[in-house]
Amino acid sequence: MELQNVLPADIEKRSMEIIAEELGEIQLDPEKLSIIKRVIHTSADFDYARTLHFSNGVVEKALEALKKGATIVTDTNMACVGINKPGLNKLGGKAVCFMADADVAERAKEAGSTRAAACMEKACEVEGPVIIAVGNAPTALVRLDELVKEGRIKPELVIGVPVGFVNVVESKEIIMKTGIPYIVARGRKGGSNVAAAICNALIYKLTR
Amino acid sequence: MELQNVLPADIEKRSMEIIAEELGEIQLDPEKLSIIKRVIHTSADFDYARTLHFSNGVVEKALEALKKGATIVTDTNMACVGINKPGLNKLGGKAVCFMADADVAERAKEAGSTRAAACMEKACEVEGPVIIAVGNAPTALVRLDELVKEGRIKPELVIGVPVGFVNVVESKEIIMKTGIPYIVARGRKGGSNVAAAICNALIYKLTR
Repeated sequence: MELQNVLPADIEKRSMEIIAEELGEIQLDPEKLSIIKRVIHTSADFDYARTLHFSNGVVEKALEALKKGATIVTDTNMACVGINKPGLNKLGGKAVCFMADADVAERAKEAGSTRAAACMEKACEVEGPVIIAVGNAPTALVRLDELVKEGRIKPELVIGVPVGFVNVVESKEIIMKTGIPYIVARGRKGGSNVAAAICNALIYKLTR
Repeated sequence: MELQNVLPADIEKRSMEIIAEELGEIQLDPEKLSIIKRVIHTSADFDYARTLHFSNGVVEKALEALKKGATIVTDTNMACVGINKPGLNKLGGKAVCFMADADVAERAKEAGSTRAAACMEKACEVEGPVIIAVGNAPTALVRLDELVKEGRIKPELVIGVPVGFVNVVESKEIIMKTGIPYIVARGRKGGSNVAAAICNALIYKLTR
């Protein structure tokens, strides 16, 4: 087995070509294609061509939010770290994660909820347009659905890609009915890497 | 579709039970089982039951290294952030990532290599036992193989789980022949989340 001789700068381009080749005959909306391809690029998992679901006009709405300098709130530090900061900063936006905050731990303890759910409450206090990116905790999506219905938060976009086995599938179905623009990976799969990849695909549409 | 009523503290336990049920008749070495289950827990991808490969006696060697306070060097900040710090600190270890270091960018530029490859060179300067965890860049594994052969580094363990389409499969086959203890996800799949999950599964064996 021989290594291919690909220059560092060309690795991503070559990867995207391979992904496009292997997607083959699958017809995908060109607007969504770069997002789907970037998620496959980060996971090597072609299931996402089938499982990623987009609400009507969500890409345009997401790009509008980013242009307004939206704050991306993630449910893990991994997702937050994975988001392309130079690109986001160029748009005047920022990425934050409240999971390690002392007041979040306290809120969760008092409410008997998860810290991820408490993070969504803290997200209600963020000023300006907000994008919620959930790559880990279904409890964050369930709480977000409640907060939206209570009128406490109105995100420009929710990226709903938690991963796992308990209430993950259900939480995604719930958030798709909440009435906010969404990009969701239906089923069990997802992750912080997938959440960051979707954010980055959107950011790159505006900055590359 | 109804949400299951599972207490926050019980979500992981219930997830692991579901994973064990669905692994079904697959016979797995008990020593490796908790590592495989944690990777599936972090990815919801049962492929890893088949693709994760372990060198002889690697788990025992890895635990010895962690007990000696090994430094885990990752190739992404995402993997570094995902490693359980309270557990690792309890063992006297630490996790580091050199990807954002100015001298690494410079080395890479001079050598015409990737920053990930330059990170492996910097890893040679780490004092004490070292564990290398690669969740992203195949070029890190290829360079590591060279550095081991040149006698410049002798890791206690390499976690080789880069993800992608260009030289990823090949880099894993190379590192499995280098002669150092390894845990490798053969094939294209892997990721920073998988690298962190393997580290955490090992850490939890000693601290939970």
